[in-house]
Amino acid sequence: MSNPSVSARIVLQRQRRRRLEAGHPWVYQTEVERIEGDPTPGDLVDIVNHQGVFLARGYINPRSQIVARVLTYDAGEVIDRAFFTRRIAAAWAHRGRFLPATGACRAVYGEADFLPGLIVDKYGDVLVVQILALGMEVRKDDILAALMEVFRPRGILLRNDVPVRSLEGLPLETTVWAGEVPPEVVIEENGLQFIVDVQAGHKTGYFFDQRDNRAAIRPLMTGWGAEHGRTPQDGDPFWDGAEVLDAFCHTGAFAVHALAYGARRVIAVDISEPALAVGRRNAELNGVADRVQWVAANAFDYLRELERAGRRFDVVILDPPAFAKSRHALEGAIRGYKEINLRGMKLTRDGGYLVTSSCSFHMRPDLFRETILDAAVDAHKVLRLVHWSGAGKDHPEIEGVPEGHYLKFAIYEVRSRR
Amino acid sequence: MSNPSVSARIVLQRQRRRRLEAGHPWVYQTEVERIEGDPTPGDLVDIVNHQGVFLARGYINPRSQIVARVLTYDAGEVIDRAFFTRRIAAAWAHRGRFLPATGACRAVYGEADFLPGLIVDKYGDVLVVQILALGMEVRKDDILAALMEVFRPRGILLRNDVPVRSLEGLPLETTVWAGEVPPEVVIEENGLQFIVDVQAGHKTGYFFDQRDNRAAIRPLMTGWGAEHGRTPQDGDPFWDGAEVLDAFCHTGAFAVHALAYGARRVIAVDISEPALAVGRRNAELNGVADRVQWVAANAFDYLRELERAGRRFDVVILDPPAFAKSRHALEGAIRGYKEINLRGMKLTRDGGYLVTSSCSFHMRPDLFRETILDAAVDAHKVLRLVHWSGAGKDHPEIEGVPEGHYLKFAIYEVRSRR
Repeated sequence: MSNPSVSARIVLQRQRRRRLEAGHPWVYQTEVERIEGDPTPGDLVDIVNHQGVFLARGYINPRSQIVARVLTYDAGEVIDRAFFTRRIAAAWAHRGRFLPATGACRAVYGEADFLPGLIVDKYGDVLVVQILALGMEVRKDDILAALMEVFRPRGILLRNDVPVRSLEGLPLETTVWAGEVPPEVVIEENGLQFIVDVQAGHKTGYFFDQRDNRAAIRPLMTGWGAEHGRTPQDGDPFWDGAEVLDAFCHTGAFAVHALAYGARRVIAVDISEPALAVGRRNAELNGVADRVQWVAANAFDYLRELERAGRRFDVVILDPPAFAKSRHALEGAIRGYKEINLRGMKLTRDGGYLVTSSCSFHMRPDLFRETILDAAVDAHKVLRLVHWSGAGKDHPEIEGVPEGHYLKFAIYEVRSRR
Repeated sequence: MSNPSVSARIVLQRQRRRRLEAGHPWVYQTEVERIEGDPTPGDLVDIVNHQGVFLARGYINPRSQIVARVLTYDAGEVIDRAFFTRRIAAAWAHRGRFLPATGACRAVYGEADFLPGLIVDKYGDVLVVQILALGMEVRKDDILAALMEVFRPRGILLRNDVPVRSLEGLPLETTVWAGEVPPEVVIEENGLQFIVDVQAGHKTGYFFDQRDNRAAIRPLMTGWGAEHGRTPQDGDPFWDGAEVLDAFCHTGAFAVHALAYGARRVIAVDISEPALAVGRRNAELNGVADRVQWVAANAFDYLRELERAGRRFDVVILDPPAFAKSRHALEGAIRGYKEINLRGMKLTRDGGYLVTSSCSFHMRPDLFRETILDAAVDAHKVLRLVHWSGAGKDHPEIEGVPEGHYLKFAIYEVRSRR
């Protein structure tokens, strides 16, 4: 597609937060003074302040609450195929700089790679793409050409089965966009192998954002033999390994890491049988299947049962799905996070570790930590924070765009306060 | 010292924040209902709620605003030499579990290792100790014995030249506590060598808290050749390396890391000639002295000069001392952080990196990031957060004790917003 001239512009109100100037790439309906010209949804528009000064250029969708998203702050930059190639190549260069391995990672992360509404996950030589905004949908041909040029993939799958597309007036669909796409691919993460169901798995099939956090549990997995009265003479090669509970284990990524790092035994719980089936295969693939027990159950109920049975673990891992999908669901989510963390810390032995995370954007970092502290007070525990982080380096954040910071991850040492 | 019976107790007010129950190990004067018994400053006391229920045991100092600090939550635990040996050994086990190398690190971090008022930094076979509270001062003999037992060091230096001791009514002094202590030691950090002036250097001589953050700059240091129009054929072994500015370089820890990781050239600025002198020796020790220029100057002034001269760097590193030593100094500190970060980002080339940190406790993480964003708005930059962290794993935090979280560290990609 050649670049059409930009014939329309959005004039912002005089009274508004200087959101755009502070790096936020979205324009809300409520900030707009008027729209000049007669743009078609998806068209390029210049965004100007109330005095007509150019601020940015982006695409418009009058049907969306987010009426425009910024593609460039440079009035001279043409939005054409070369633009997408440049931006995608820059995103890829970022991964090359910061990730130790780029075989499987999030290659384009929408707004944070200055490509709002475009997600590209790379699974070896297969790309899985989500197009989340109309302005990107109408530029699909340029995006496809750019992806082919930068990655030369074997195949590209469009996983456009994302509810948020409805808000943009776009259909939900999953289609092979280019080349051939196998139903499953095997990726490597932290030196381990994982099966990914790209066609039907959650989101694009795998959660890359926890990669570094999965690696961060390594120091927790050994050094427990003496606590359990075990010695090397027991003949158990994993005599020194941790007893681990992995709740909301999904396809077993944390569990397989724990086992590969030396855990003696992992109980991995998830309510989804299909996810557990992939988990089993992942454990076999990595030669750790004999030390893990998969349990199909509601994690809340199952942890309560374990507690009643007086069970204790050296390490408890909690990686729940987003409890708060919207701001309205926040109160219930706080209760959910408090309960699961309360049970998790009660199941952790004195001096053991609670590994806990939240991927709900609405559960802000401070609130997440306050909720965990609240649980600690009730459980008579003192928590020592050993590790705190978010998503990995293939999920950068634009400063001033809180929407980009959704993942919270913590490792706590748990001590009794009698 | 054998353990005296605990003959006094502090009864807390009915109306108070449940600080102690939430893991905070300090009791403030303002929370105390009454003190029962006639304790000598430094004595052990039981801390009970308004109903007389045991909450914790600690030591008392009626002269301090912090009237008591918690040593244990276990009413049955005796505070004797064995107690200190257990606690110090547990702190040491924590380092063994989480640090890749323990030759040089913070071995005991006060409250966060459940030993309030005691800091132990380990420089090879030399320990440097700070005793920051009267309750620890009166237990010096037990602490010394415990340190000897756990570490068997060649020497221990007491760096009790810390102003905070005055608030406890304790004298300021630096003395050799045991064995022999050389004026300087050489430590290893991230595989590099650093000279530490244990007798007269800042605090205990070195800042271990930035260890991981220094390692985190590695990916920034190469990949710049093409940007500068350089090729391997230039005959410069560092043709692909970054041009780096290191402001507030102190004894050159960041600068030496940058050079060892492949920087082509580093300009390192600090106002302290003695610190620069050690920096020079550190660079020589690591074989990187030919690529660094040391500048003795006020960093604010010098950055302004560089900006006027139109200089640009691939990477700018800012590691200033605490601008806000107290809450009252916060406003000035915010101005200081804003100015230095504004200058730093203006000196960063488009697509380059700003490495910035703050060790002021009063500059809370959100405020620090808001201040940087504020500078970005003024400088017409969009900042992309690549890395965010705090102090390393030898500086754990107790959840609910904000005082423990003082270090903020960020790596931003800097882009122009024209």
